[in-house]
Amino acid sequence: MQDTIFLDRLGAHAVAVETLLAALLSTSKRDGEIARPTRLFAAMRHGALNGGKRLRPALVIESAALFGGSAEAALRVAAALECIHCYSLIHDDLPAMDNDDLRRGQPTVHKAFDEAAAILAGDSLLTYAFEIVASSETPLAAEQKIDLTLALAQAAGPGGMAGGQALDLEAETKVLCEAEIIVMQSMKTGALIRFACEAGAIIGSAGRQERDRMIRFGQIIGLAFQLRDDLLDLVADSATLGKATGKDAARGKGTLPSLKGVAWTENRLAELIAEAQSLLSPYGARAAMLIKLASYVATREK
Amino acid sequence: MQDTIFLDRLGAHAVAVETLLAALLSTSKRDGEIARPTRLFAAMRHGALNGGKRLRPALVIESAALFGGSAEAALRVAAALECIHCYSLIHDDLPAMDNDDLRRGQPTVHKAFDEAAAILAGDSLLTYAFEIVASSETPLAAEQKIDLTLALAQAAGPGGMAGGQALDLEAETKVLCEAEIIVMQSMKTGALIRFACEAGAIIGSAGRQERDRMIRFGQIIGLAFQLRDDLLDLVADSATLGKATGKDAARGKGTLPSLKGVAWTENRLAELIAEAQSLLSPYGARAAMLIKLASYVATREK
Repeated sequence: MQDTIFLDRLGAHAVAVETLLAALLSTSKRDGEIARPTRLFAAMRHGALNGGKRLRPALVIESAALFGGSAEAALRVAAALECIHCYSLIHDDLPAMDNDDLRRGQPTVHKAFDEAAAILAGDSLLTYAFEIVASSETPLAAEQKIDLTLALAQAAGPGGMAGGQALDLEAETKVLCEAEIIVMQSMKTGALIRFACEAGAIIGSAGRQERDRMIRFGQIIGLAFQLRDDLLDLVADSATLGKATGKDAARGKGTLPSLKGVAWTENRLAELIAEAQSLLSPYGARAAMLIKLASYVATREK
Repeated sequence: MQDTIFLDRLGAHAVAVETLLAALLSTSKRDGEIARPTRLFAAMRHGALNGGKRLRPALVIESAALFGGSAEAALRVAAALECIHCYSLIHDDLPAMDNDDLRRGQPTVHKAFDEAAAILAGDSLLTYAFEIVASSETPLAAEQKIDLTLALAQAAGPGGMAGGQALDLEAETKVLCEAEIIVMQSMKTGALIRFACEAGAIIGSAGRQERDRMIRFGQIIGLAFQLRDDLLDLVADSATLGKATGKDAARGKGTLPSLKGVAWTENRLAELIAEAQSLLSPYGARAAMLIKLASYVATREK
């Protein structure tokens, strides 16, 4: 698959997700709702419609396509997952957490609105994600929706992403060993990415073996994503990256690239790309987009 | 039904919910979780195992019993709902929101731990609630679990409780009219109480008509709960209530009792009790506990 075809398709997924999120977060009241508070929804839109890469949604959509799952259902689950990702960014940016004023060049939600609005916008996006999955507008069987709800709650909750953020904050005051870094990262960033790939298998009614294969594929993508992120923080210049670099070192946070070195990291990333290709080889050309996504995640320059 | 029997049964429900929550929030890792961060789970327990009245769980349990629903399932849904109620208290207490140092005589979570831990403990309890409902340990059909997930997400989300808190914060800087107060309260406190009653009907596989009846019963209980709360804030002395009174007036917040007076409020509460009795009269003695709950909510002294 050529890079231009790949990038066009990635871009098209991002546009589709952005469009659906804009509709879901509009101010028009829906069934089952008492009212849609104007300022709260504005804060939710500020945090969710921010032109992100929409990597997780792309993984849901392409994984579902691999198993012939409903594209409409995949897009809705992708939007739900992105709501959770965006809530986590809003809360992570808060003064009591990472205290960031900017995200993608825009004021963070607590800067553009206020802290209370940012807390509530995050809470609301998190809760709304489960409504989107369970909604009658998501064309899936109840069993599939419950599988997705359970896997999403586990990926996002205290045994997954939220727990990973708690461990990451603790890491600012204590030095983590290699094993602790791996656990923390597999929770903080790995869990949602793994869910994205598993979700496609659920949407496509794949069997247990294929679902486990997609979980493993998601783990590989999650590892590669984090290694690449940490490597860029270590070696890229901030102009290329579009954000401050050296942040991890400045916060005293150990990462695998800082512990093991640049050469080890680049070698490990190449291994992960190869493992991803090998895992999906049974699907032949149908998995081309997912394999390209793995290599994109592991080699991106920002 | 005698008061002692009623109070004993209410107490037994509270103990059952507290016991299940303690087990669900223990540090032992469960299937699908990568790890359970010790301090995060301690903060979650601090916020959830606080000896509350457990009114919402009692409504789930008694409503499910009315329709012959599984007591085990009802207890788990009750615990999930209480996780959501407790998350909302943790976040509402934060410095950026109501800035409360004490809850039920104990330090609030951000005081006992820190702000970041309180934000993450709230996020985690909210997410975990959906895991509890969807879990294979909850003995319900997938359709029932999806109905519960959808109704719970709508009740807790931006069109429900979280939206009501956003409107309540705005009310500190602008004066709400009667209609706006009613909308705000039906979202902030009404939505979860209404869900509690509807949940029992779902757990007991009740038909549409009975489910709508329980939604209406939940609305009545929610209205009575809030009117009584506001009345106590207006007229009770703080020694009886065990917390500061006159808080609403001090914050410049209008309530229905402050707008319409004590006599109007007492009359309205009596009407609501009568309406609750009349709604459940088709169920005869089987609804005695729920009717008693309505009158308890409307007449409690704290």
